[in-house]
Amino acid sequence: MLRTTTCGALTIKNLGENVILCGWVQKSRDLGGMTFIDIRDRYGITQLVFNMDDNRELCEAARNLGREFVIKASGLVVERSNKNLKMPTGEVEIKITALEVLNAAKLPPFLIDDETDGGDDLRMKYRYLDLRRNPVRNNMIIRHKIAQAVRRYLDGLDFIEVETPVLIKSTPEGARDFVVPSRMNAGEFYALPQSPQTFKQLLMVSGFDRYFQIVKCFRDEDLRADRQPEFTQIDCEMSFIEQEDILNTFEGLIRTLFKEIKGIDLPEVPRMQYADAMRLYGSDKPDTRFDMQFVELNHLVKGKDFPVFDHAELVIGINAKGCASYTRKQVDELTDFIKRPQVGATGLIYLRHNEDGSLKSSVDKFYNEEDLKGWSAALNTQPGDLVLVMAGTTDKVRKQLSELRLEMGNRLGLRDKNVFSALWVLDFPLLEWDEETERYHAMHHPFTSPKPEDIVLLDTKPAEVRANAYDMVINGTEVGGGSIRIHDRALQALMFKHLGFSTEEAQKQFGFLMDAFEFGAPPHGGIAFGFDRLCSIFAGLDSIRDVIAFPKNNSGRDVMIDSPSTIDEKQLNELKIKSTV
Amino acid sequence: MLRTTTCGALTIKNLGENVILCGWVQKSRDLGGMTFIDIRDRYGITQLVFNMDDNRELCEAARNLGREFVIKASGLVVERSNKNLKMPTGEVEIKITALEVLNAAKLPPFLIDDETDGGDDLRMKYRYLDLRRNPVRNNMIIRHKIAQAVRRYLDGLDFIEVETPVLIKSTPEGARDFVVPSRMNAGEFYALPQSPQTFKQLLMVSGFDRYFQIVKCFRDEDLRADRQPEFTQIDCEMSFIEQEDILNTFEGLIRTLFKEIKGIDLPEVPRMQYADAMRLYGSDKPDTRFDMQFVELNHLVKGKDFPVFDHAELVIGINAKGCASYTRKQVDELTDFIKRPQVGATGLIYLRHNEDGSLKSSVDKFYNEEDLKGWSAALNTQPGDLVLVMAGTTDKVRKQLSELRLEMGNRLGLRDKNVFSALWVLDFPLLEWDEETERYHAMHHPFTSPKPEDIVLLDTKPAEVRANAYDMVINGTEVGGGSIRIHDRALQALMFKHLGFSTEEAQKQFGFLMDAFEFGAPPHGGIAFGFDRLCSIFAGLDSIRDVIAFPKNNSGRDVMIDSPSTIDEKQLNELKIKSTV
Repeated sequence: MLRTTTCGALTIKNLGENVILCGWVQKSRDLGGMTFIDIRDRYGITQLVFNMDDNRELCEAARNLGREFVIKASGLVVERSNKNLKMPTGEVEIKITALEVLNAAKLPPFLIDDETDGGDDLRMKYRYLDLRRNPVRNNMIIRHKIAQAVRRYLDGLDFIEVETPVLIKSTPEGARDFVVPSRMNAGEFYALPQSPQTFKQLLMVSGFDRYFQIVKCFRDEDLRADRQPEFTQIDCEMSFIEQEDILNTFEGLIRTLFKEIKGIDLPEVPRMQYADAMRLYGSDKPDTRFDMQFVELNHLVKGKDFPVFDHAELVIGINAKGCASYTRKQVDELTDFIKRPQVGATGLIYLRHNEDGSLKSSVDKFYNEEDLKGWSAALNTQPGDLVLVMAGTTDKVRKQLSELRLEMGNRLGLRDKNVFSALWVLDFPLLEWDEETERYHAMHHPFTSPKPEDIVLLDTKPAEVRANAYDMVINGTEVGGGSIRIHDRALQALMFKHLGFSTEEAQKQFGFLMDAFEFGAPPHGGIAFGFDRLCSIFAGLDSIRDVIAFPKNNSGRDVMIDSPSTIDEKQLNELKIKSTV
Repeated sequence: MLRTTTCGALTIKNLGENVILCGWVQKSRDLGGMTFIDIRDRYGITQLVFNMDDNRELCEAARNLGREFVIKASGLVVERSNKNLKMPTGEVEIKITALEVLNAAKLPPFLIDDETDGGDDLRMKYRYLDLRRNPVRNNMIIRHKIAQAVRRYLDGLDFIEVETPVLIKSTPEGARDFVVPSRMNAGEFYALPQSPQTFKQLLMVSGFDRYFQIVKCFRDEDLRADRQPEFTQIDCEMSFIEQEDILNTFEGLIRTLFKEIKGIDLPEVPRMQYADAMRLYGSDKPDTRFDMQFVELNHLVKGKDFPVFDHAELVIGINAKGCASYTRKQVDELTDFIKRPQVGATGLIYLRHNEDGSLKSSVDKFYNEEDLKGWSAALNTQPGDLVLVMAGTTDKVRKQLSELRLEMGNRLGLRDKNVFSALWVLDFPLLEWDEETERYHAMHHPFTSPKPEDIVLLDTKPAEVRANAYDMVINGTEVGGGSIRIHDRALQALMFKHLGFSTEEAQKQFGFLMDAFEFGAPPHGGIAFGFDRLCSIFAGLDSIRDVIAFPKNNSGRDVMIDSPSTIDEKQLNELKIKSTV
């Protein structure tokens, strides 16, 4: 046996024991005739002590150890005179009697410490060293714990974990599919799944009743916006259920995770219509850690000869509580913020509700005190509040003011990473118009069912058809989404028609699924959670990259192993493909 | 709520309850004025009863239901007059008061029953219907249970599940890599991993200490021999351990699985040297459910002018207990067996130890009674036994007799699928000679460490160098294998040199790993179990295909979704590749 215990296990209870520890040299210091070495492993840090008087040779060997050397040290657990009560092992040290270097180490290219001096690129190239750092490794441990807790919860509810294939079929919808040339079937290609959607629906047709999988999915797309070409989903599906069953089951999952991983009792998750979310927050994933809801002002602001508002489709305000004292410079900053290309707005109107009760707006030329009192009442302002108003076409102004709302949330410290607010957003539209292709796309995916009462609108007002679709949002991030599926061949065919598929195309691509619906498909529905995103929220991180052991960069490259890379001509020949670069 | 309970839950305890069930029509029969319908879901079968006198319309609706229709039925739990005590639900039936067809079903192309009339191809095309059959679905449930039990066991021992990337780098060794063209990095390719080997070693360098993953791996190779292009591994790695720690930890895993999944107390797993396995069974994965060990006979058979034996490098016999009564025809069958191309032997010698004590061989011309008594003693025969002897070059004759031994095991009923015999095979050779490429290959993989005392032989007798490598064998099938890895840059470089890599090639392909070894790599080792194979053994199946929800056929095709398939010219253009078929 190489070691008898780990570097995180020994406490005052172990005094007098002879132990063997293995680990990395974290740091070392010499103090008179003594040398102290902190030895580190995944479990903790323990102090080793060497004494020149006791054993000169051993102490000199210890003095020759460099940072990150891998050592094996044997000795006796003794009480420390200088205790460090911040560490579980801080009351003891090991009086070393034998030392072996298991592996020497070159000086790492950056500090292996909670705070490191390594830049992003360097840490990615030496990711195996970055993963030695506590904060990074702890992210992986949280991820592990969440995965195990998810499985325990779902297994306990009779969900069966089924592995669906990774080598599947490319679809013309699948512009973002990764494809894999087949050697055995030269000229043909597999595709990597963007999700196991059709397979999990087939499992419902098979009568599996409750399915889940924590599964890698793939998307070959632009990687801005914190995406990865391979990502992980918690993928779930249930039969013989209604939307209510799904919401309850998976609200239970999320609450269980908060309890088990963070010790937090998440309250019951509120529910909001998509239409209300758009109206009140300008977003289908509102951050509900803070209020600051939109108030629509059309009825109060129109017809006063202020052309910006008169020409606008929608005028909305938010109440930034306590911001009346904002300086001109601060207000200018907000104007600059909304003019950034990412937001793309042109102007911002404000109304100060001063501490003395007076109202002062940036459009006093057009609105008298009575008018402003109307605004103030609508936005329920108190002395000290600042109303921010934007105007424009409905979709745009909502999106723009939503960005400003989040910015105000940041400025007011209302978006604490240790506060969690979850929300179900319900009744998404079934279809959304795509300007580029000039046709409707499925907002969720083509297998989502419309609300039965809205099916009649499919031909006449497709944009108004609501879907049995739902998202779970935590702190303004969509962490999961799903729908009740179509389980009827005719309705599925109708849906494909509305998405612009010819009957032949639909049959060629999804014939197997529509055929399956004819052999007794149960009503079913499901949900998928973005596992990386969920982990990043639990770990209090902004980026999913930090909860992935070996992530790729924004160009889809793994700089550590240098991938992707060119391959041999011989290999290409065998696959019967040719690079045209 | 669509249903109040499942089709497997109601017993005599539920009498008088009003329930709603959902499921598939398994069968239906009319008896006078009554109609009985068996409704099925994943959990069981429940009998529904309809009565013409009570409700003519409802009963007629029931009579119109076809097999596999999906229905929702409400009614009262009553006691059955004609009880079926073989079923948990067999004491009750549901007197139906309301019936709804949730989905009609066409007649399935084969019987959805434990025994089906569907051929392989048909069942694969309609795999979602095949998965409705109990035996097939039960395989998936066993797989699920094993996966959860594996995770519980390893999580309990502080192993951390880490997801390693699926889009990695192709290696020249990787003739069997699937490759994935990158759109963002046109002209370059990712590869799909044949195993997460290098990543799990990097995790050890990172100090993860104990890692596992149940992970999809990929190999683009000939699919005979029950292989699949995508398969699943239980992949594990540990730091600061010796071989003994690995054997104990994973013997514990296997014994836990046998206990939890099958209720079997597997005894301590015996250990055998690779050299002994080859000598005693002619195989590195001996089926130890039965004995019938090889006995080498060179010293007894040479020099008697029997040219076959005189010219042979090795002569070996096995004792087929109780087979002396085999007829000429039966012996001829065995000769035919060994002459099959898969075995490839030319002749079989036998010695009968007759019930009357006399000895009779097929080579009496060359061997007198005294000689045969020597054979008999060596093979420890009793009256009634039949000795089967083969001769040839060492490697070939061992392989051939090993096949015959398994065949005799089958004929004698010694290979019961409900009996389990596990074995560790230890100390595999490090290298094996490849006739085709005329160089040595790593028998396990290039990261396996040689036994320290054998390193001196690397230059002079490479074939004799033993590795710190081990396999777990159950019932003659290799279910897992692993090794203590090299963790030293110089030794890894030496290993690559012996495998015919130039220094540049080694650095280009595995530089990131060798670099990592310089920053403090701990001693480490691991193991990987073939998860599909393990599941098939627990399910008592011969083929791994039966424990995979959506398997591919021998040509690597998924006939259900018709994959692989051709893809659009547009898609190929975007990827900057061209098919040369």
